[in-house]
Amino acid sequence: MEETDVKEKILKGAEELFKKYGVRSISMDDIARHLSVSKKTLYQHFADKEDIVTMACKAHLEKNAKEFERVMETAKNAIDELAKLSVCLKRNMQDLNPSLLFDLQKYHPRAWAEWVNHKNKFIRCSVVRNLKQGIEEGYFRPEIDPEVIASMRLELVQLAFDEEIFPREQFRLTEVQMQIFDHFVYGVVTDKGRKLYQKYKEVNHHQPSTIL
Amino acid sequence: MEETDVKEKILKGAEELFKKYGVRSISMDDIARHLSVSKKTLYQHFADKEDIVTMACKAHLEKNAKEFERVMETAKNAIDELAKLSVCLKRNMQDLNPSLLFDLQKYHPRAWAEWVNHKNKFIRCSVVRNLKQGIEEGYFRPEIDPEVIASMRLELVQLAFDEEIFPREQFRLTEVQMQIFDHFVYGVVTDKGRKLYQKYKEVNHHQPSTIL
Repeated sequence: MEETDVKEKILKGAEELFKKYGVRSISMDDIARHLSVSKKTLYQHFADKEDIVTMACKAHLEKNAKEFERVMETAKNAIDELAKLSVCLKRNMQDLNPSLLFDLQKYHPRAWAEWVNHKNKFIRCSVVRNLKQGIEEGYFRPEIDPEVIASMRLELVQLAFDEEIFPREQFRLTEVQMQIFDHFVYGVVTDKGRKLYQKYKEVNHHQPSTIL
Repeated sequence: MEETDVKEKILKGAEELFKKYGVRSISMDDIARHLSVSKKTLYQHFADKEDIVTMACKAHLEKNAKEFERVMETAKNAIDELAKLSVCLKRNMQDLNPSLLFDLQKYHPRAWAEWVNHKNKFIRCSVVRNLKQGIEEGYFRPEIDPEVIASMRLELVQLAFDEEIFPREQFRLTEVQMQIFDHFVYGVVTDKGRKLYQKYKEVNHHQPSTIL
């Protein structure tokens, strides 16, 4: 196998484990066992667990960005984009361990910095652009300030992971994210946008696999 | 003057200064000078600045709670309540130093605890009750989960004060609070609720003094 293939395989395997169990509880031993490789192989490609966490986080965010870009390219308008993102978000949240994000913040500053950078650059730009486009198309309320509403949206993505605010014995991550996402959309739309969002949601609900 | 009157006068004067300049930059000397009393008088009624900050915070939150209760009592329905609260919020935010809240969090844990307690008990209950009422009245979307949306709303009140997210050279506190509040309302309403909210806003805009 090519060296880059091995590296990618390790990152993919580590990502699977982190998503399922969070980052904190997963050791180099766990990763080696999950991939049926020796620990020596892991250390040939990565300095330590911190290195794997950072690289896996980076790879995951790049994959996410590509997925979002595909949505933007194929979306017919700002509302269609949100309806499609809603399906992606739901899929991405399912089976995700809610402690993942705050594990990074507390124990993996380099990976956390990757997320903050992704949030403040890529996601912020996408949200602001979507809001401006929706206003121009007459689907979003012209009174909204795209910069304020985008900043709010970015924080809310993160908020849903906060177990102090949404304790896991009371709330499910996917449920919280979807409640907050839907509230976000209803908060920005005009009457015309609202009708269209409901229509798209209805369609995606019946044919979720065709949206991308 | 009665002892309790002196105490109240000090708290009222301190509150004025804190609102205008934040808590951190105000000393016992500033409070004494502002009220034209001696520092000795301050120390006869309060142990130290921390004590004044905590008591002023408590008094302010109690006043707020009374104002909100008056709104709830006179509101004709869940939408009317939000429209009236919007006017209160705007008035309360004007001339408020945005650094106030995070000064408390960083330097005055007792006063911060008062705020957190007020937020998690009084405000949370009010928001959940308003949301349930609105759903029953057919003004709010029945799909919303009042507990999730209330938790989100509580965090957003606080978020607007965060100068890392809304730097003061770029954003005005009142503007941010009102953008987020309006977005919150539009996010929960049905078509019927939306029409009514717009009607009430129109009325309050022209007769702001008559709403309370």
